[in-house]
Amino acid sequence: MSGQIKDIGEEGVIALARSVKYHSAKRLLKGIGDDCAVIRGAGNSALLVTTDVMLDGVHFAYEWCPPESVGAKLLAVNLSDIAAMGGKPEDAFLCLMLPENLAANWVESFFYGFNKIAQRYGVNLAGGDVSRHPDRITLALTLTGRMRRDEVVYRSRAREGDFIYVSGTLGDAEAGMTLLQAQKSTTPFASYLINRYLYPDPRLELGRLLARTRTATAMIDLSDGLAIGVRQLAQASRLSAEIEVDNIPVSEELTTFISIKNNHNHHPSQSLKPKAQSLMPKAQSLFPQEFALRAGGDYELLFTVKPENVRRVERFHLNHPELPQLTHIGTMKENKTDNDEWTNVLGNGGWKHFR
Amino acid sequence: MSGQIKDIGEEGVIALARSVKYHSAKRLLKGIGDDCAVIRGAGNSALLVTTDVMLDGVHFAYEWCPPESVGAKLLAVNLSDIAAMGGKPEDAFLCLMLPENLAANWVESFFYGFNKIAQRYGVNLAGGDVSRHPDRITLALTLTGRMRRDEVVYRSRAREGDFIYVSGTLGDAEAGMTLLQAQKSTTPFASYLINRYLYPDPRLELGRLLARTRTATAMIDLSDGLAIGVRQLAQASRLSAEIEVDNIPVSEELTTFISIKNNHNHHPSQSLKPKAQSLMPKAQSLFPQEFALRAGGDYELLFTVKPENVRRVERFHLNHPELPQLTHIGTMKENKTDNDEWTNVLGNGGWKHFR
Repeated sequence: MSGQIKDIGEEGVIALARSVKYHSAKRLLKGIGDDCAVIRGAGNSALLVTTDVMLDGVHFAYEWCPPESVGAKLLAVNLSDIAAMGGKPEDAFLCLMLPENLAANWVESFFYGFNKIAQRYGVNLAGGDVSRHPDRITLALTLTGRMRRDEVVYRSRAREGDFIYVSGTLGDAEAGMTLLQAQKSTTPFASYLINRYLYPDPRLELGRLLARTRTATAMIDLSDGLAIGVRQLAQASRLSAEIEVDNIPVSEELTTFISIKNNHNHHPSQSLKPKAQSLMPKAQSLFPQEFALRAGGDYELLFTVKPENVRRVERFHLNHPELPQLTHIGTMKENKTDNDEWTNVLGNGGWKHFR
Repeated sequence: MSGQIKDIGEEGVIALARSVKYHSAKRLLKGIGDDCAVIRGAGNSALLVTTDVMLDGVHFAYEWCPPESVGAKLLAVNLSDIAAMGGKPEDAFLCLMLPENLAANWVESFFYGFNKIAQRYGVNLAGGDVSRHPDRITLALTLTGRMRRDEVVYRSRAREGDFIYVSGTLGDAEAGMTLLQAQKSTTPFASYLINRYLYPDPRLELGRLLARTRTATAMIDLSDGLAIGVRQLAQASRLSAEIEVDNIPVSEELTTFISIKNNHNHHPSQSLKPKAQSLMPKAQSLFPQEFALRAGGDYELLFTVKPENVRRVERFHLNHPELPQLTHIGTMKENKTDNDEWTNVLGNGGWKHFR
């Protein structure tokens, strides 16, 4: 095989990983290719396992992310994978690779944030490994979960005609990251968005409810943004998806953020020194929904529902007022080979590590 | 908390990790502090989980370790942790963090080596995460295992008077690393030692046998060397250990390696240019057993046996000729506060990442 990692990309590396043959497909109900691996347990139980890494400078920034947010988020993004199957989290295994000159109280605060989320969701920190890392803080977490095997929600089981829903509002996290990076956290709308970036809420209660009531036919969490999430769910289900961009739920805070951004783009002299003006790309006014389509890091749930169960979703809030809002944003369609509609709506985008 | 990671060390980081409270001690039979976490399963079953990292430049070297050896070893060192509890391995979860300019065929060869060990021991690669890493190849593996709960061998259950055994021969891996680094792989004894470094044999069959027959009262794998392993087992069991250094099993190849090393130290002019002579520390002749006491990376099993079961261990080879040699190297003793004997024999040493 020729080329470098940046040529074959994340997908190329995963394709190589698939060369490792499964030894026991009977035990392994789902391996590579969903939010969690699903392993057959005793009786009707299933063990869920997920793992996610976070690196300083790639997934967070040491300079502007408080250590307690890094500890909280590392656990939260893994919890989000358990939520996307409909499971209940159990035990976490942490690999901490740290530069030798890192302050010990960074690690202390990291565990403070980790512990807070662990307590809230009933997770044990059950093991791990510690090593020095010569370059940068490098973290990996593996998390197990448990659920009834017949309730597991895979991303591959959506059917033609299913309604597509998303939880919460989208785009907040990426806007928050931009504001945090620019150190613009003084206004209330900015604090809200920054908080959404630093402390994503794993949608465990919603995931459990959708699985237990068998309401979701397929589900995925939006770590890399809606555009990529929809495509992954559609591809896994061998369907296409039609998304009504205008229906994408956005927060008032994101709308404020985008309107300020649009204003700056139209009147760069208000915010930029003359010298920098010529470097500004000519930006058009952006709708918050367009931003939210491609923005990553929200960790909301995307799920599909049979048309006959749609009213049940609409009524969830009556019994569970604490749930995030649930918004119908599109429909699963038959997959035609040249489905321009699908690619037109979604295109490329989201967060990618390679390419 | 003041200071840096290098001041608090690996132990200090683990102490901070213990600040994360266990949510369910009932489910978690053993958390931080053994080769694997042990989680209560259905009926009499237990789930084992272990995780280990490997970084280029810390745990292996890109320049002189073939990629297939890195894939094989990453899995083998985790398998060794399952072996040290007496378990049977099941599913692996891999975090691959890779520089963008790494050759894709490095990854292809890595998976070739990984797959070979996975097939041999019946392991599924069931999931993982892929990310770019700006600096260096950084790997983390989590491995699950399964066994009867009443057969799990903890490192904390040794009793006073128990005989201490070790499998195989010690010191080979570290000697092999030295030779590989110096690119001295042309002689047969060097190839043997280098192979022991690159391709450690996880002692799964031995671990299973010791657990199933309830022969080992306590067990640990020797990732960091005998000196550290004995101390960890003794501390966990609240005992001390008396090791007869002369009884430490060493290979002929290690004896050859040490005799050449001793010879070079006495006659530095044979191997070093005059300019370098003054930089050589004054070294005394070393016995292979002294080297083997502190050398790391062998991944042999250290275990304790009740005196009445010693004859059973001696007879294992009659029915299992494929097992590695098992050598009696010492005895568990009462722990006195100022046990000079223990510290005299063991001192400090082995592989440490911090300090």
